Amino acid sequence: MIPFTAPSEDILFSLREVADANSITDWDDDLASDIIQAFASFAQDVIAPLDEIGDRDGCRLEDGCVRMPGGFTQAYSQMAEMGWQGLTAPQQFGGMAQNTLIDAAVSEIFSGANHAMQMLCNLVPGAITTLLRYGSREQQREWIPKLASGEALSTMCLTEAGAGSDLSQIRTKAVMDNDGWRIHGEKIFISGGDQDMSDDILHLILARTQNDPGTINGLSLFIASKKASKSNIQITRIEEKMGLHASPTCQMSFDGTSAELIGEQGQGLRAMFTMMNHARLDVALQGVAHASRAFKIAHSYAMERKQGRNPDGGDARLADHADVKRMLNEQRALMMGARAMAHAALVKSQNENNAVLVDFLTPICKVFCTQAGIRAADLGIQILGGYGYLNEYRINQTWRDARITAIYEGANGIHELSTVTRGVLHHDGVGADAFYGFIGEITDHPAVLALRELWCKQRVRVENAANPSEFAHEFAQLSGELFYRAVWVKIARKKDEVQFDALLKFVLSQPLPLSLDLDN
Amino acid sequence: MIPFTAPSEDILFSLREVADANSITDWDDDLASDIIQAFASFAQDVIAPLDEIGDRDGCRLEDGCVRMPGGFTQAYSQMAEMGWQGLTAPQQFGGMAQNTLIDAAVSEIFSGANHAMQMLCNLVPGAITTLLRYGSREQQREWIPKLASGEALSTMCLTEAGAGSDLSQIRTKAVMDNDGWRIHGEKIFISGGDQDMSDDILHLILARTQNDPGTINGLSLFIASKKASKSNIQITRIEEKMGLHASPTCQMSFDGTSAELIGEQGQGLRAMFTMMNHARLDVALQGVAHASRAFKIAHSYAMERKQGRNPDGGDARLADHADVKRMLNEQRALMMGARAMAHAALVKSQNENNAVLVDFLTPICKVFCTQAGIRAADLGIQILGGYGYLNEYRINQTWRDARITAIYEGANGIHELSTVTRGVLHHDGVGADAFYGFIGEITDHPAVLALRELWCKQRVRVENAANPSEFAHEFAQLSGELFYRAVWVKIARKKDEVQFDALLKFVLSQPLPLSLDLDN
Repeated sequence: MIPFTAPSEDILFSLREVADANSITDWDDDLASDIIQAFASFAQDVIAPLDEIGDRDGCRLEDGCVRMPGGFTQAYSQMAEMGWQGLTAPQQFGGMAQNTLIDAAVSEIFSGANHAMQMLCNLVPGAITTLLRYGSREQQREWIPKLASGEALSTMCLTEAGAGSDLSQIRTKAVMDNDGWRIHGEKIFISGGDQDMSDDILHLILARTQNDPGTINGLSLFIASKKASKSNIQITRIEEKMGLHASPTCQMSFDGTSAELIGEQGQGLRAMFTMMNHARLDVALQGVAHASRAFKIAHSYAMERKQGRNPDGGDARLADHADVKRMLNEQRALMMGARAMAHAALVKSQNENNAVLVDFLTPICKVFCTQAGIRAADLGIQILGGYGYLNEYRINQTWRDARITAIYEGANGIHELSTVTRGVLHHDGVGADAFYGFIGEITDHPAVLALRELWCKQRVRVENAANPSEFAHEFAQLSGELFYRAVWVKIARKKDEVQFDALLKFVLSQPLPLSLDLDN
Repeated sequence: MIPFTAPSEDILFSLREVADANSITDWDDDLASDIIQAFASFAQDVIAPLDEIGDRDGCRLEDGCVRMPGGFTQAYSQMAEMGWQGLTAPQQFGGMAQNTLIDAAVSEIFSGANHAMQMLCNLVPGAITTLLRYGSREQQREWIPKLASGEALSTMCLTEAGAGSDLSQIRTKAVMDNDGWRIHGEKIFISGGDQDMSDDILHLILARTQNDPGTINGLSLFIASKKASKSNIQITRIEEKMGLHASPTCQMSFDGTSAELIGEQGQGLRAMFTMMNHARLDVALQGVAHASRAFKIAHSYAMERKQGRNPDGGDARLADHADVKRMLNEQRALMMGARAMAHAALVKSQNENNAVLVDFLTPICKVFCTQAGIRAADLGIQILGGYGYLNEYRINQTWRDARITAIYEGANGIHELSTVTRGVLHHDGVGADAFYGFIGEITDHPAVLALRELWCKQRVRVENAANPSEFAHEFAQLSGELFYRAVWVKIARKKDEVQFDALLKFVLSQPLPLSLDLDN
């Protein structure tokens, strides 16, 4: 087992040098560094050691309540006490009012240390944003302080047995009686649907207020408190998963649960998307966190492990073999490139004028960065060989935990589809135009500009296709590659070292995700 | 959970139509079909239902003995009684004397039904071949009947803590005393090092008879019986793995274990390779088995599951979505193509004149087919979405079990290296020449011939490289792609149906694993 070390310096380099964090008005370089270092040391000392225990022991459902694995509850209390749950909450509600870049840095470190625990804690910033945007004064005053202090955690209750990627199929109903709204229905795949870390849980629930089945028209967003609804929220099951054993994925039954409408009736999806947009870049960063953890484990193993001989006859390290070097290079390149992509999108998201661009970048980052995490973990398993297959170095946990990121918060295929629909086909493709311009802003490297022209050709193909969804995967993959290579040019320029020039060359020479044109 | 159905018809099609099984003198088409059907029904009824139980419960080490999960011991007895363990053994030793193609078909079905149990049983054909080639009359007469009847299973005791891919580091010693040879040392990663299915276990042990550390010169092969050595073979540990929980991966300690030399002193590796060559194509077929299982689970799920709307407004199935179609296509193409590749190599291996070709094809099949299994399982997880991440449909078990195939029996990187060293650089590249000719034998499709020319350019690059190992991965991948596309042309021609023409087009249009030449 190779202990977790937070990639604080790498994150700071990426934010400062590659993503231009300085362009954000409230970026304070020293403060950022202090906060990141402080969280890093807490994550290393307290959170990371629980990661393997969580994988091994998992959560249990006892008498209708979820029990977290040993140590999680104590670690959470400590974290809440230090104020970390209120990192982005406004000061008037007891928060630290830090910007989204700091949040991203902390979140990546948290995910690398313990993805399962991060999932339970990190729905809170999105819930706070939703309350700030759509909640009443009373709702804000009641809930934001509880979320910021850690007294409450929050959930997103969307998915139902017949309604996963297609939310129009939601059947959970909200009906008004004399005391207000009451929720009736069953939800599945609810992360943190219950746990024994926080005193209360704020459930954000998507339910139907109009009987308009098969559409998204009648969907509204509600909030309900676990504590106030003890008897009519039942946890009926914890799912058995391949990973994230310490993140309880719950089946829940709402049986006349008292709830409050948040925002307007019928506008539930819009309100929910506030939460989900935050969540999507956060999931991209989970991918980055796994890539980083996988690289560090594999690199440290490959530098220590002796294998075979060098040309001079001396003992070789595993890392001296060409094939292992190749895999380590790919891991490192993915880790740094994916991080820079997510950071660049986050920096752009801080200016409302960039909304169209950010809307294009978000699904691309979600897809590319989650793939990067899974791929780097897979390479890590291969580098460690037989030991990668054992639990001993926990590299297979990284893969098993990372694998969900390509599925949840919108399966990657759904995001790829949105790259061609919202990105290329809608509004005359202003999204794709903005992306085209953005690549030029990042670099004028000839290899990247040539790839951009190839990308333009693919864009035209999408525009002219009878069924554009058939090109969604390839177009989104190519868009991701283009963005990746562009940020890598910038990374290498800023690093200005021979090894990074070599890595850039490696990145630029990778095969392209382009199908061969058999007619030419 | 979608029950296992053996791909008997697919296997027979592949053997007959694609791999030209009829070219083998002892191929009996009706007999082959009967045997395959018989094993298929046993696998479906008895072996496959234990697969999930094995994953859930795993093996336990109790008082130094390995206990198999519930049902394994009974199923094994039944299988042994039916004679399946003697499928390839000569009749004089109680076997059925069937050829390697029948063995391959049965082995693929076995792996698809229950990879863990297959691993325990399927080292036997290699052990029998080793005994036939290197054993004394007495050794053959003592052991082959026991192996054929199922009274004994066998192991390969190679790996040690410091000696995985590099066997020159082996430290286990064999010393001669008055009663014969005695083994002293520790072995790790020994599949089936102990189990309670068979009455005895024949351990094949690589040990040093000369004190020539760091070389393979002094390595000799020994056999030892578990039953005869109870007190001086200790099982010190079962490893905790990410998959194959019902296959006990043992740490063993040999403490003066009485053993017999098999073959000549110092010729241990050569004898061991007899076993390993069988094992390598068998591992390729494990990959095929996983690809097939993954495709069937995903296909059946995607045809049933409703998701969204068709253009006509009716309910769509998951399988109607372009992105899901793409993933199912890739799974199906990998399954059929990988199977045909392994079968083609096996058919060629039946004629000793093809030794050079088979030597080139074996590592390529090992790499391509194991990747195919892992990739198809990964696609299966993605197709099932959230349900892919749960244990419910067991698709994640397919991935976890399949993942080892790229690591064991020589990590894929080692096989890729051997493709450039043994295949291209040694003996003026007669291996690569034979492969070039073989592709032309399979098809004259212009897309395949064009790819073969590209492959020739890469071959020249390997020949001229200062450090050819740097090109090993790419060259082996390209060789695999070339072989895959060639067999696919033949598959489509033999199937002669529109859907297979479309699949061929899909296969031929896939991106190539070729790095971009930045200097042009």
